[in-house]
Amino acid sequence: MEFPSKLIENAVGELSKLPGVGKKTALRLALHLLKAEADTTATLAEALAKMRFEIRYCDTCHNISDTPECTICANKLRDHSTVCVVSDIRDVIAIENTGQYKGTYHVLGGVISPIEGVGPSDLQIDSLVARMGAPESEVKEVILAISPTMEGDTTAFFLSRKLRDFEGVHISTIARGIPMGGELEYADEITLGRSIVERQRQAR
Amino acid sequence: MEFPSKLIENAVGELSKLPGVGKKTALRLALHLLKAEADTTATLAEALAKMRFEIRYCDTCHNISDTPECTICANKLRDHSTVCVVSDIRDVIAIENTGQYKGTYHVLGGVISPIEGVGPSDLQIDSLVARMGAPESEVKEVILAISPTMEGDTTAFFLSRKLRDFEGVHISTIARGIPMGGELEYADEITLGRSIVERQRQAR
Repeated sequence: MEFPSKLIENAVGELSKLPGVGKKTALRLALHLLKAEADTTATLAEALAKMRFEIRYCDTCHNISDTPECTICANKLRDHSTVCVVSDIRDVIAIENTGQYKGTYHVLGGVISPIEGVGPSDLQIDSLVARMGAPESEVKEVILAISPTMEGDTTAFFLSRKLRDFEGVHISTIARGIPMGGELEYADEITLGRSIVERQRQAR
Repeated sequence: MEFPSKLIENAVGELSKLPGVGKKTALRLALHLLKAEADTTATLAEALAKMRFEIRYCDTCHNISDTPECTICANKLRDHSTVCVVSDIRDVIAIENTGQYKGTYHVLGGVISPIEGVGPSDLQIDSLVARMGAPESEVKEVILAISPTMEGDTTAFFLSRKLRDFEGVHISTIARGIPMGGELEYADEITLGRSIVERQRQAR
């Protein structure tokens, strides 16, 4: 694609480095910004730079935070005996949006992936072990809420071996099965098979 | 959606103002920037701001340009007797990419759309008339290359009435018909009907 202006070419080049944004989308975004008020671009550019350079992570759970301790860890009303281990900040947001969880989190920052060169030492695993082993720790349950992919399962397996030395701490994983509203006949065999083996008994 | 950080919330809010970017996509982009080198964000923010604040438009054709006259208008090798009228800068890029056009352009900056409150005076129509009426004008043909939508057709009709006083200037529109590789049976009736009425005679 040839551009009539170096300025546009640069902007399109940078925009198309974003995930899911190709050259055509990048051009559409750039032209949108050109048509809109100059303020729109200034505010966007400032918000992005401010976010990137001023962002902090919670010292305890490594969730994103504007303060040294995130709002969840600092909240005395939440159940500090339960830690939900997730790979990503997005998962924290997703679980918070359900309104069903009142414990704390631990954000690994990824999953073990030999192909992408991500090993256990690249993740917040040691800090989880340290957090659980601290004398003031009140952790009684660790929920492994990691996506059931190849890498996710590897990570969960690695974690459950690391954590099994903590006596008196229950380790659980999120329930797998047929999603609500899902049709049985379209479910894959592994999910359907597991959902029968690990059937949930109904309360009478 | 609740965010653990005001900084992220702001960035997501600004990103989701872009066309085709919802809250979820915006969050994905923001988290991508957080994971990537800080330089990525700095370069992106700078490229956007620089583009928006330093961009110029060609004094003649209103195409985007880094100089007062764009590279197409300044190019002596191009055919300055033919002006291709398009609604948008994107159309210039698209036509340039075909490599089939050697004339100049005139960018209207939109199409007449009463619903969106865009009238003829909001577009570069007067400047087109002035450009054609100038004593040094060498324009012999105006090609109306405007998308065949309701608004586009209105704009083309308005333009052809405005321009018909220029004697000796041919007005044409881009050919409409079945796209290359298109199947006749899937073409809509209007396109197919017009493609028969306005059939192109083959050279023997």
